[in-house]
Amino acid sequence: MFDVKLETYIGKMPESEIKKIVIIGAGNVATNLAQALRKAGFDIIQIYGRTNHLAKALADKVRSSYTSNLSNLNMEGDIYFLSVVDSALKDIIKKINIGDKLIVHTSGSTPIDILKNSSSNYGVFYPLQTFSKHKKLDFENIPVCLEANSDRNLKLLTSLAKTISKNVKNINSEQRVAIHLAAVFSCNFTNHMFVIAEEILNKYDIPFDMVKPLIHETVKKIADEKPHKVQTGPAKRDDHETIAKHLNMLVNDKEYMEIYKLITENIIKHKNQTE
Amino acid sequence: MFDVKLETYIGKMPESEIKKIVIIGAGNVATNLAQALRKAGFDIIQIYGRTNHLAKALADKVRSSYTSNLSNLNMEGDIYFLSVVDSALKDIIKKINIGDKLIVHTSGSTPIDILKNSSSNYGVFYPLQTFSKHKKLDFENIPVCLEANSDRNLKLLTSLAKTISKNVKNINSEQRVAIHLAAVFSCNFTNHMFVIAEEILNKYDIPFDMVKPLIHETVKKIADEKPHKVQTGPAKRDDHETIAKHLNMLVNDKEYMEIYKLITENIIKHKNQTE
Repeated sequence: MFDVKLETYIGKMPESEIKKIVIIGAGNVATNLAQALRKAGFDIIQIYGRTNHLAKALADKVRSSYTSNLSNLNMEGDIYFLSVVDSALKDIIKKINIGDKLIVHTSGSTPIDILKNSSSNYGVFYPLQTFSKHKKLDFENIPVCLEANSDRNLKLLTSLAKTISKNVKNINSEQRVAIHLAAVFSCNFTNHMFVIAEEILNKYDIPFDMVKPLIHETVKKIADEKPHKVQTGPAKRDDHETIAKHLNMLVNDKEYMEIYKLITENIIKHKNQTE
Repeated sequence: MFDVKLETYIGKMPESEIKKIVIIGAGNVATNLAQALRKAGFDIIQIYGRTNHLAKALADKVRSSYTSNLSNLNMEGDIYFLSVVDSALKDIIKKINIGDKLIVHTSGSTPIDILKNSSSNYGVFYPLQTFSKHKKLDFENIPVCLEANSDRNLKLLTSLAKTISKNVKNINSEQRVAIHLAAVFSCNFTNHMFVIAEEILNKYDIPFDMVKPLIHETVKKIADEKPHKVQTGPAKRDDHETIAKHLNMLVNDKEYMEIYKLITENIIKHKNQTE
Protein backbone atom coordinates (compact mmCIF):
# COMPACT_ATOMS: atom_id res chain seq x y z
CA MET A 1 0.00 0.00 0.00
CA PHE A 2 2.86 2.36 0.76
CA ASP A 3 4.42 2.17 -2.62
CA VAL A 4 1.35 3.62 -4.34
CA LYS A 5 2.26 7.14 -5.37
CA LEU A 6 0.49 9.92 -3.54
CA GLU A 7 -0.47 11.60 -6.80
CA THR A 8 -2.64 8.68 -7.76
CA TYR A 9 -5.08 9.77 -5.11
CA ILE A 10 -5.09 13.52 -5.35
CA GLY A 11 -8.46 14.76 -6.47
CA LYS A 12 -9.66 11.24 -7.03
CA MET A 13 -9.99 9.95 -3.53
CA PRO A 14 -13.72 9.70 -3.04
CA GLU A 15 -15.13 10.52 0.39
CA SER A 16 -17.01 7.31 -0.03
CA GLU A 17 -13.82 5.40 0.60
CA ILE A 18 -14.81 5.68 4.26
CA LYS A 19 -18.43 4.78 4.87
CA LYS A 20 -18.62 2.46 7.84
CA ILE A 21 -17.28 3.48 11.18
CA VAL A 22 -16.60 1.52 14.37
CA ILE A 23 -16.19 3.54 17.56
CA ILE A 24 -14.24 1.92 20.36
CA GLY A 25 -15.26 3.93 23.41
CA ALA A 26 -18.46 5.41 24.75
CA GLY A 27 -17.26 8.36 26.85
CA ASN A 28 -17.51 12.12 26.32
CA VAL A 29 -15.36 12.31 23.18
CA ALA A 30 -16.75 9.11 21.63
CA THR A 31 -20.31 10.28 22.24
CA ASN A 32 -19.83 13.66 20.60
CA LEU A 33 -17.74 12.31 17.75
CA ALA A 34 -20.11 9.46 16.92
CA GLN A 35 -23.05 11.85 16.78
CA ALA A 36 -21.20 14.34 14.59
CA LEU A 37 -20.11 11.60 12.17
CA ARG A 38 -23.58 10.11 12.06
CA LYS A 39 -25.01 13.56 11.33
CA ALA A 40 -22.48 13.96 8.50
CA GLY A 41 -23.93 10.84 6.90
CA PHE A 42 -21.59 8.05 7.97
CA ASP A 43 -22.78 4.65 9.14
CA ILE A 44 -21.75 3.99 12.70
CA ILE A 45 -21.85 0.22 12.53
CA GLN A 46 -20.67 -0.60 16.05
CA ILE A 47 -19.97 0.97 19.41
CA TYR A 48 -17.69 -0.77 21.89
CA GLY A 49 -18.11 0.20 25.53
CA ARG A 50 -16.65 -1.09 28.79
CA THR A 51 -20.11 -2.37 29.69
CA ASN A 52 -23.11 -3.22 27.52
CA HIS A 53 -24.99 -0.49 29.31
CA LEU A 54 -22.48 2.22 28.37
CA ALA A 55 -22.16 0.93 24.80
CA LYS A 56 -25.92 0.77 24.32
CA ALA A 57 -26.46 4.30 25.59
CA LEU A 58 -24.32 5.68 22.77
CA ALA A 59 -25.35 3.06 20.19
CA ASP A 60 -28.98 4.10 20.63
CA LYS A 61 -28.09 7.70 19.84
CA VAL A 62 -26.46 6.82 16.53
CA ARG A 63 -28.56 3.79 15.54
CA SER A 64 -25.63 1.45 15.83
CA SER A 65 -25.13 -2.04 17.16
CA TYR A 66 -22.88 -2.41 20.17
CA THR A 67 -20.65 -4.74 22.15
CA SER A 68 -18.65 -4.81 25.35
CA ASN A 69 -16.42 -7.60 24.10
CA LEU A 70 -13.42 -6.63 21.97
CA SER A 71 -13.32 -10.11 20.40
CA ASN A 72 -16.67 -9.31 18.85
CA LEU A 73 -15.46 -6.21 17.01
CA ASN A 74 -17.21 -5.83 13.68
CA MET A 75 -14.63 -6.40 10.93
CA GLU A 76 -16.58 -4.46 8.28
CA GLY A 77 -15.48 -0.99 9.42
CA ASP A 78 -13.60 1.29 7.02
CA ILE A 79 -12.15 3.14 9.98
CA TYR A 80 -11.83 2.39 13.70
CA PHE A 81 -11.91 5.26 16.19
CA LEU A 82 -10.18 4.47 19.44
CA SER A 83 -11.67 6.93 21.86
CA VAL A 84 -11.05 5.71 25.39
CA VAL A 85 -9.34 7.23 28.43
CA ASP A 86 -5.58 7.45 27.93
CA SER A 87 -4.89 5.04 30.77
CA ALA A 88 -6.87 2.29 29.00
CA LEU A 89 -5.39 2.84 25.55
CA LYS A 90 -2.44 0.43 25.68
CA ASP A 91 -4.49 -2.36 27.13
CA ILE A 92 -7.26 -2.05 24.57
CA ILE A 93 -4.82 -1.75 21.65
CA LYS A 94 -3.32 -5.11 22.60
CA LYS A 95 -6.72 -6.76 22.35
CA ILE A 96 -7.72 -5.31 18.99
CA ASN A 97 -7.22 -7.28 15.83
CA ILE A 98 -8.41 -5.45 12.73
CA GLY A 99 -5.81 -6.43 10.14
CA ASP A 100 -4.87 -3.55 7.87
CA LYS A 101 -7.89 -1.40 8.58
CA LEU A 102 -7.36 2.30 9.26
CA ILE A 103 -7.33 2.98 12.97
CA VAL A 104 -7.02 6.31 14.77
CA HIS A 105 -6.92 7.35 18.39
CA THR A 106 -8.43 10.61 19.64
CA SER A 107 -5.99 11.33 22.46
CA GLY A 108 -4.22 14.67 22.80
CA SER A 109 -1.28 13.42 24.76
CA THR A 110 -0.56 10.06 23.12
CA PRO A 111 1.97 9.74 20.28
CA ILE A 112 0.85 8.26 16.99
CA ASP A 113 3.34 5.40 17.41
CA ILE A 114 1.25 3.68 20.03
CA LEU A 115 -0.74 2.30 17.08
CA LYS A 116 2.17 1.12 14.95
CA ASN A 117 1.66 -2.55 15.74
CA SER A 118 -2.12 -2.44 15.37
CA SER A 119 -2.34 -1.95 11.62
CA SER A 120 -0.27 -0.66 8.74
CA ASN A 121 -2.76 2.22 8.47
CA TYR A 122 -3.02 4.42 11.49
CA GLY A 123 -3.28 7.95 12.65
CA VAL A 124 -4.60 10.43 15.18
CA PHE A 125 -7.89 12.31 15.07
CA TYR A 126 -7.84 14.68 18.05
CA PRO A 127 -10.77 17.06 18.43
CA LEU A 128 -9.65 19.90 20.67
CA GLN A 129 -12.62 20.58 22.88
CA THR A 130 -14.07 19.90 26.33
CA PHE A 131 -16.87 17.43 25.82
CA SER A 132 -19.70 16.26 28.02
CA LYS A 133 -21.84 13.23 27.21
CA HIS A 134 -25.07 15.09 27.68
CA LYS A 135 -24.24 18.26 25.80
CA LYS A 136 -24.11 17.73 22.06
CA LEU A 137 -21.69 20.22 20.52
CA ASP A 138 -21.59 21.57 17.03
CA PHE A 139 -18.31 20.28 15.60
CA GLU A 140 -18.11 22.92 12.91
CA ASN A 141 -15.69 25.21 14.78
CA ILE A 142 -13.88 22.57 16.79
CA PRO A 143 -10.24 22.23 15.69
CA VAL A 144 -9.50 18.68 14.59
CA CYS A 145 -5.79 17.80 14.83
CA LEU A 146 -4.75 15.13 12.40
CA GLU A 147 -1.67 12.98 12.07
CA ALA A 148 -1.23 9.85 9.98
CA ASN A 149 1.42 7.30 9.14
CA SER A 150 1.19 8.02 5.40
CA ASP A 151 0.13 10.79 3.07
CA ARG A 152 -2.68 8.64 1.83
CA ASN A 153 -4.05 8.09 5.29
CA LEU A 154 -3.65 11.77 6.09
CA LYS A 155 -5.74 12.58 3.04
CA LEU A 156 -8.36 10.07 4.02
CA LEU A 157 -8.54 11.55 7.52
CA THR A 158 -8.57 15.09 6.17
CA SER A 159 -11.51 14.46 3.90
CA LEU A 160 -13.31 12.71 6.75
CA ALA A 161 -12.56 15.49 9.25
CA LYS A 162 -13.70 18.17 6.83
CA THR A 163 -17.16 16.66 6.76
CA ILE A 164 -17.61 17.68 10.40
CA SER A 165 -15.25 20.63 10.99
CA LYS A 166 -14.11 23.77 9.18
CA ASN A 167 -10.98 23.78 11.31
CA VAL A 168 -8.79 20.82 10.33
CA LYS A 169 -5.03 20.95 11.03
CA ASN A 170 -2.00 18.74 10.52
CA ILE A 171 -0.35 18.46 13.91
CA ASN A 172 2.54 16.20 14.84
CA SER A 173 2.69 14.21 18.06
CA GLU A 174 4.95 16.65 19.89
CA GLN A 175 2.80 19.64 18.95
CA ARG A 176 -0.28 17.71 20.00
CA VAL A 177 0.99 17.17 23.56
CA ALA A 178 1.75 20.90 23.71
CA ILE A 179 -1.79 21.64 22.54
CA HIS A 180 -3.19 19.24 25.09
CA LEU A 181 -1.12 20.85 27.84
CA ALA A 182 -2.25 24.32 26.74
CA ALA A 183 -5.82 23.00 26.76
CA VAL A 184 -5.41 21.88 30.37
CA PHE A 185 -4.33 25.39 31.36
CA SER A 186 -6.93 27.23 29.34
CA CYS A 187 -9.85 24.92 30.06
CA ASN A 188 -9.42 22.66 33.11
CA PHE A 189 -7.35 25.08 35.19
CA THR A 190 -9.52 28.01 34.14
CA ASN A 191 -12.57 26.05 35.22
CA HIS A 192 -10.87 25.36 38.53
CA MET A 193 -10.36 29.10 39.03
CA PHE A 194 -14.15 29.34 38.66
CA VAL A 195 -14.58 26.54 41.22
CA ILE A 196 -12.44 28.43 43.73
CA ALA A 197 -14.22 31.73 43.01
CA GLU A 198 -17.59 30.08 43.56
CA GLU A 199 -16.48 28.60 46.86
CA ILE A 200 -15.20 31.96 48.12
CA LEU A 201 -18.41 33.71 47.08
CA ASN A 202 -20.69 31.10 48.62
CA LYS A 203 -18.90 31.45 51.94
CA TYR A 204 -20.17 35.05 51.99
CA ASP A 205 -23.65 34.27 50.68
CA ILE A 206 -22.99 35.67 47.26
CA PRO A 207 -24.15 33.75 44.18
CA PHE A 208 -21.58 32.76 41.57
CA ASP A 209 -23.68 34.62 38.99
CA MET A 210 -22.16 37.80 40.36
CA VAL A 211 -18.85 37.19 38.56
CA LYS A 212 -20.27 35.90 35.29
CA PRO A 213 -20.27 39.27 33.46
CA LEU A 214 -16.63 39.58 34.53
CA ILE A 215 -15.81 36.13 33.17
CA HIS A 216 -17.50 36.94 29.87
CA GLU A 217 -15.51 40.14 29.52
CA THR A 218 -12.28 38.31 30.45
CA VAL A 219 -12.81 36.03 27.45
CA LYS A 220 -14.03 38.83 25.16
CA LYS A 221 -10.81 40.73 25.82
CA ILE A 222 -8.65 38.01 24.29
CA ALA A 223 -10.64 37.92 21.07
CA ASP A 224 -8.35 40.46 19.42
CA GLU A 225 -5.57 41.01 21.94
CA LYS A 226 -2.86 38.77 23.33
CA PRO A 227 -3.73 37.61 26.88
CA HIS A 228 -0.66 39.21 28.50
CA LYS A 229 -1.63 42.59 26.99
CA VAL A 230 -5.01 42.68 28.73
CA GLN A 231 -4.08 41.58 32.26
CA THR A 232 -5.56 43.71 35.07
CA GLY A 233 -5.79 43.36 38.85
CA PRO A 234 -3.60 43.73 41.93
CA ALA A 235 -0.65 41.62 40.71
CA LYS A 236 -0.46 43.57 37.46
CA ARG A 237 -0.62 46.85 39.43
CA ASP A 238 1.98 45.75 41.98
CA ASP A 239 -0.70 46.46 44.57
CA HIS A 240 0.82 44.61 47.51
CA GLU A 241 -1.66 46.02 49.98
CA THR A 242 -4.58 44.37 48.20
CA ILE A 243 -2.61 41.17 47.69
CA ALA A 244 -1.99 41.09 51.46
CA LYS A 245 -5.72 41.58 52.15
CA HIS A 246 -6.55 38.70 49.83
CA LEU A 247 -3.97 36.40 51.37
CA ASN A 248 -5.32 37.30 54.77
CA MET A 249 -8.77 36.25 53.64
CA LEU A 250 -7.37 32.86 52.54
CA VAL A 251 -5.57 32.22 55.80
CA ASN A 252 -7.76 29.22 56.61
CA ASP A 253 -7.32 27.66 53.24
CA LYS A 254 -3.63 27.01 52.77
CA GLU A 255 -4.04 25.43 49.33
CA TYR A 256 -5.94 28.36 47.84
CA MET A 257 -3.41 30.64 49.48
CA GLU A 258 -0.58 28.74 47.78
CA ILE A 259 -2.32 28.90 44.43
CA TYR A 260 -2.96 32.63 44.90
CA LYS A 261 0.67 33.30 45.81
CA LEU A 262 2.15 31.25 43.00
CA ILE A 263 0.01 32.73 40.23
CA THR A 264 0.39 36.25 41.61
CA GLU A 265 4.18 35.90 41.66
CA ASN A 266 4.08 34.56 38.12
CA ILE A 267 1.94 37.47 36.88
CA ILE A 268 4.37 39.93 38.47
CA LYS A 269 7.34 38.15 36.92
CA HIS A 270 5.71 38.18 33.47
CA LYS A 271 4.84 41.83 33.83
CA ASN A 272 8.43 42.73 34.63
CA GLN A 273 9.68 40.73 31.66
CA THR A 274 7.37 42.39 29.18
CA GLU A 275 7.42 45.95 30.49
CA MET B 1 -28.69 65.82 57.67
CA PHE B 2 -28.91 62.54 59.53
CA ASP B 3 -31.94 63.46 61.59
CA VAL B 4 -34.11 63.75 58.50
CA LYS B 5 -36.35 60.68 58.54
CA LEU B 6 -35.70 58.15 55.80
CA GLU B 7 -39.40 58.08 54.89
CA THR B 8 -39.26 61.69 53.83
CA TYR B 9 -37.25 60.57 50.82
CA ILE B 10 -38.89 57.36 49.77
CA GLY B 11 -40.49 57.72 46.41
CA LYS B 12 -39.78 61.41 46.40
CA MET B 13 -36.08 61.47 46.05
CA PRO B 14 -35.57 62.93 42.64
CA GLU B 15 -32.71 61.56 40.58
CA SER B 16 -31.88 65.18 40.06
CA GLU B 17 -30.60 65.41 43.63
CA ILE B 18 -27.33 64.28 42.05
CA LYS B 19 -26.52 66.23 38.94
CA LYS B 20 -22.91 67.30 39.07
CA ILE B 21 -20.15 64.75 39.39
CA VAL B 22 -16.46 65.11 40.17
CA ILE B 23 -14.26 62.15 39.32
CA ILE B 24 -10.99 61.83 41.22
CA GLY B 25 -8.97 59.47 39.10
CA ALA B 26 -8.36 58.94 35.39
CA GLY B 27 -7.50 55.25 35.15
CA ASN B 28 -9.41 52.26 33.74
CA VAL B 29 -12.34 52.35 36.17
CA ALA B 30 -12.61 56.16 36.24
CA THR B 31 -12.57 56.29 32.45
CA ASN B 32 -15.36 53.77 32.01
CA LEU B 33 -17.44 55.11 34.88
CA ALA B 34 -17.19 58.75 33.78
CA GLN B 35 -18.29 57.84 30.28
CA ALA B 36 -21.22 55.75 31.51
CA LEU B 37 -22.40 58.53 33.85
CA ARG B 38 -22.02 61.15 31.17
CA LYS B 39 -24.04 58.96 28.80
CA ALA B 40 -26.75 58.64 31.47
CA GLY B 41 -27.09 62.41 31.46
CA PHE B 42 -24.98 63.56 34.40
CA ASP B 43 -22.65 66.52 34.26
CA ILE B 44 -19.07 65.50 34.84
CA ILE B 45 -17.82 68.85 36.06
CA GLN B 46 -14.23 67.91 36.83
CA ILE B 47 -11.68 65.16 36.41
CA TYR B 48 -8.67 64.95 38.69
CA GLY B 49 -5.68 63.04 37.37
CA ARG B 50 -2.13 62.49 38.60
CA THR B 51 -0.92 64.60 35.71
CA ASN B 52 -2.69 67.19 33.57
CA HIS B 53 -2.10 64.96 30.61
CA LEU B 54 -3.94 61.99 32.18
CA ALA B 55 -6.74 64.19 33.50
CA LYS B 56 -7.23 65.93 30.16
CA ALA B 57 -7.39 62.64 28.25
CA LEU B 58 -10.45 61.61 30.21
CA ALA B 59 -11.90 65.12 30.58
CA ASP B 60 -11.97 65.46 26.80
CA LYS B 61 -14.03 62.29 26.52
CA VAL B 62 -16.72 63.55 28.88
CA ARG B 63 -16.57 67.30 28.15
CA SER B 64 -15.32 68.10 31.61
CA SER B 65 -12.76 70.46 33.05
CA TYR B 66 -9.77 68.91 34.74
CA THR B 67 -7.01 69.41 37.26
CA SER B 68 -3.97 67.64 38.60
CA ASN B 69 -4.00 69.60 41.82
CA LEU B 70 -6.26 68.37 44.61
CA SER B 71 -6.38 71.84 46.18
CA ASN B 72 -8.23 72.96 43.06
CA LEU B 73 -11.07 70.45 43.42
CA ASN B 74 -14.34 71.91 42.22
CA MET B 75 -16.61 72.37 45.26
CA GLU B 76 -19.83 72.34 43.22
CA GLY B 77 -20.06 68.56 42.87
CA ASP B 78 -23.10 66.68 44.23
CA ILE B 79 -20.99 63.53 44.46
CA TYR B 80 -17.26 62.79 44.38
CA PHE B 81 -16.04 59.50 42.92
CA LEU B 82 -12.69 58.43 44.24
CA SER B 83 -11.41 56.03 41.64
CA VAL B 84 -7.66 55.66 42.03
CA VAL B 85 -5.37 52.68 42.60
CA ASP B 86 -5.82 51.24 46.09
CA SER B 87 -2.26 52.08 47.06
CA ALA B 88 -2.92 55.81 46.47
CA LEU B 89 -6.30 55.95 48.25
CA LYS B 90 -5.17 56.88 51.77
CA ASP B 91 -2.85 59.55 50.56
CA ILE B 92 -5.41 61.21 48.33
CA ILE B 93 -8.15 61.02 50.97
CA LYS B 94 -5.96 63.02 53.35
CA LYS B 95 -5.66 65.81 50.80
CA ILE B 96 -9.34 66.07 49.93
CA ASN B 97 -11.49 68.70 51.59
CA ILE B 98 -15.09 68.60 50.38
CA GLY B 99 -17.06 69.37 53.53
CA ASP B 100 -20.20 67.29 53.80
CA LYS B 101 -20.45 66.33 50.17
CA LEU B 102 -21.22 62.71 49.28
CA ILE B 103 -18.03 60.84 48.47
CA VAL B 104 -17.62 57.23 47.32
CA HIS B 105 -14.66 55.08 46.46
CA THR B 106 -14.76 52.41 43.77
CA SER B 107 -12.36 49.90 45.29
CA GLY B 108 -13.26 46.25 45.74
CA SER B 109 -10.89 45.54 48.57
CA THR B 110 -11.12 48.74 50.65
CA PRO B 111 -13.56 49.01 53.59
CA ILE B 112 -16.07 51.84 53.59
CA ASP B 113 -14.55 53.22 56.79
CA ILE B 114 -11.52 54.59 55.00
CA LEU B 115 -13.80 57.54 54.13
CA LYS B 116 -15.24 58.20 57.57
CA ASN B 117 -13.13 61.28 58.21
CA SER B 118 -13.61 62.73 54.73
CA SER B 119 -17.28 63.67 54.97
CA SER B 120 -20.38 62.78 56.93
CA ASN B 121 -21.79 61.32 53.70
CA TYR B 122 -19.83 58.49 52.20
CA GLY B 123 -20.12 55.15 50.56
CA VAL B 124 -18.74 52.64 48.10
CA PHE B 125 -19.63 52.30 44.44
CA TYR B 126 -17.78 49.23 43.18
CA PRO B 127 -18.41 48.14 39.60
CA LEU B 128 -17.37 44.50 39.29
CA GLN B 129 -15.67 44.30 35.94
CA THR B 130 -12.26 44.24 34.25
CA PHE B 131 -11.89 47.61 32.59
CA SER B 132 -9.47 48.94 30.02
CA LYS B 133 -9.16 52.62 29.18
CA HIS B 134 -9.49 52.09 25.49
CA LYS B 135 -12.41 49.69 25.49
CA LYS B 136 -15.66 51.37 26.41
CA LEU B 137 -17.95 48.83 28.06
CA ASP B 138 -21.70 48.81 28.29
CA PHE B 139 -22.44 49.17 32.00
CA GLU B 140 -25.93 47.73 31.73
CA ASN B 141 -24.99 44.22 32.88
CA ILE B 142 -22.09 45.12 35.13
CA PRO B 143 -22.87 44.42 38.79
CA VAL B 144 -22.53 47.57 40.87
CA CYS B 145 -21.88 46.83 44.56
CA LEU B 146 -23.09 49.60 46.83
CA GLU B 147 -22.50 50.41 50.47
CA ALA B 148 -23.23 53.66 52.30
CA ASN B 149 -22.98 55.15 55.75
CA SER B 150 -26.72 55.89 55.89
CA ASP B 151 -29.95 54.69 54.36
CA ARG B 152 -30.36 58.02 52.67
CA ASN B 153 -26.97 57.84 51.03
CA LEU B 154 -27.61 54.23 50.03
CA LYS B 155 -30.80 55.35 48.33
CA LEU B 156 -29.02 58.17 46.57
CA LEU B 157 -26.35 55.78 45.34
CA THR B 158 -28.94 53.19 44.34
CA SER B 159 -30.88 55.62 42.21
CA LEU B 160 -27.64 56.83 40.66
CA ALA B 161 -26.34 53.30 40.01
CA LYS B 162 -29.62 52.24 38.44
CA THR B 163 -29.22 54.89 35.76
CA ILE B 164 -26.24 52.94 34.40
CA SER B 165 -26.75 49.30 35.48
CA LYS B 166 -29.58 46.78 35.78
CA ASN B 167 -27.54 44.86 38.32
CA VAL B 168 -27.24 46.91 41.51
CA LYS B 169 -26.54 45.14 44.83
CA ASN B 170 -26.11 46.09 48.47
CA ILE B 171 -22.81 44.55 49.53
CA ASN B 172 -21.01 45.11 52.82
CA SER B 173 -17.27 45.65 53.08
CA GLU B 174 -16.45 42.07 54.05
CA GLN B 175 -18.51 40.62 51.19
CA ARG B 176 -16.89 43.08 48.83
CA VAL B 177 -13.37 41.86 49.59
CA ALA B 178 -14.61 38.32 48.99
CA ILE B 179 -16.08 39.40 45.66
CA HIS B 180 -12.83 41.14 44.76
CA LEU B 181 -10.86 38.02 45.66
CA ALA B 182 -13.22 35.84 43.62
CA ALA B 183 -12.80 38.31 40.77
CA VAL B 184 -9.03 37.90 40.91
CA PHE B 185 -9.42 34.12 40.57
CA SER B 186 -12.06 34.21 37.86
CA CYS B 187 -10.59 37.06 35.83
CA ASN B 188 -6.90 37.81 36.48
CA PHE B 189 -5.83 34.23 37.22
CA THR B 190 -7.98 32.88 34.41
CA ASN B 191 -6.33 35.36 32.07
CA HIS B 192 -2.94 34.18 33.32
CA MET B 193 -3.90 30.61 32.43
CA PHE B 194 -4.43 31.94 28.90
CA VAL B 195 -1.02 33.66 29.03
CA ILE B 196 0.66 30.36 29.94
CA ALA B 197 -1.31 28.45 27.29
CA GLU B 198 -0.26 30.96 24.66
CA GLU B 199 3.38 30.70 25.63
CA ILE B 200 3.30 26.89 25.46
CA LEU B 201 1.59 26.95 22.06
CA ASN B 202 3.93 29.54 20.60
CA LYS B 203 6.92 27.44 21.59
CA TYR B 204 5.58 24.79 19.19
CA ASP B 205 4.57 27.24 16.43
CA ILE B 206 0.89 26.93 17.14
CA PRO B 207 -1.26 30.07 17.22
CA PHE B 208 -3.24 30.83 20.38
CA ASP B 209 -6.40 30.89 18.24
CA MET B 210 -6.28 27.11 18.34
CA VAL B 211 -7.62 26.99 21.91
CA LYS B 212 -10.21 29.76 21.57
CA PRO B 213 -13.16 27.49 20.74
CA LEU B 214 -12.18 25.47 23.83
CA ILE B 215 -12.11 28.60 25.99
CA HIS B 216 -15.52 29.65 24.71
CA GLU B 217 -16.99 26.27 25.52
CA THR B 218 -15.36 26.30 28.98
CA VAL B 219 -17.28 29.48 29.75
CA LYS B 220 -20.48 28.31 28.07
CA LYS B 221 -20.50 25.23 30.28
CA ILE B 222 -20.83 27.28 33.46
CA ALA B 223 -23.84 29.22 32.18
CA ASP B 224 -26.25 26.71 33.72
CA GLU B 225 -24.04 24.34 35.69
CA LYS B 226 -21.84 24.78 38.70
CA PRO B 227 -18.15 24.88 37.72
CA HIS B 228 -17.16 21.79 39.74
CA LYS B 229 -19.86 19.77 37.95
CA VAL B 230 -18.38 20.38 34.51
CA GLN B 231 -14.70 19.78 35.13
CA THR B 232 -12.92 17.54 32.59
CA GLY B 233 -9.29 16.64 31.86
CA PRO B 234 -6.52 14.45 33.23
CA ALA B 235 -6.78 15.57 36.89
CA LYS B 236 -10.52 14.93 36.95
CA ARG B 237 -9.94 11.50 35.35
CA ASP B 238 -7.07 10.57 37.69
CA ASP B 239 -5.03 10.12 34.55
CA HIS B 240 -1.57 10.14 36.08
CA GLU B 241 0.13 9.01 32.91
CA THR B 242 -1.00 12.14 31.06
CA ILE B 243 -0.19 14.33 34.06
CA ALA B 244 3.34 12.88 34.02
CA LYS B 245 3.69 13.64 30.30
CA HIS B 246 2.59 17.23 30.88
CA LEU B 247 4.97 17.71 33.80
CA ASN B 248 7.73 16.30 31.68
CA MET B 249 6.98 18.90 29.02
CA LEU B 250 7.29 21.64 31.66
CA VAL B 251 10.60 20.40 32.99
CA ASN B 252 12.42 23.54 31.86
CA ASP B 253 9.90 25.86 33.37
CA LYS B 254 9.82 25.21 37.09
CA GLU B 255 7.20 27.89 37.81
CA TYR B 256 4.68 26.59 35.31
CA MET B 257 5.42 23.11 36.60
CA GLU B 258 4.63 24.24 40.16
CA ILE B 259 1.41 25.90 39.04
CA TYR B 260 0.44 22.78 37.09
CA LYS B 261 1.13 20.52 40.08
CA LEU B 262 -0.67 22.67 42.62
CA ILE B 263 -3.85 23.16 40.59
CA THR B 264 -3.88 19.50 39.52
CA GLU B 265 -3.60 18.36 43.13
CA ASN B 266 -6.37 20.74 44.10
CA ILE B 267 -8.68 19.47 41.33
CA ILE B 268 -8.04 15.88 42.48
CA LYS B 269 -8.74 16.84 46.09
CA HIS B 270 -11.99 18.58 45.15
CA LYS B 271 -13.06 15.63 43.05
CA ASN B 272 -12.54 13.24 45.94
CA GLN B 273 -14.52 15.52 48.27
CA THR B 274 -17.50 15.78 45.97
CA GLU B 275 -17.63 12.26 44.59
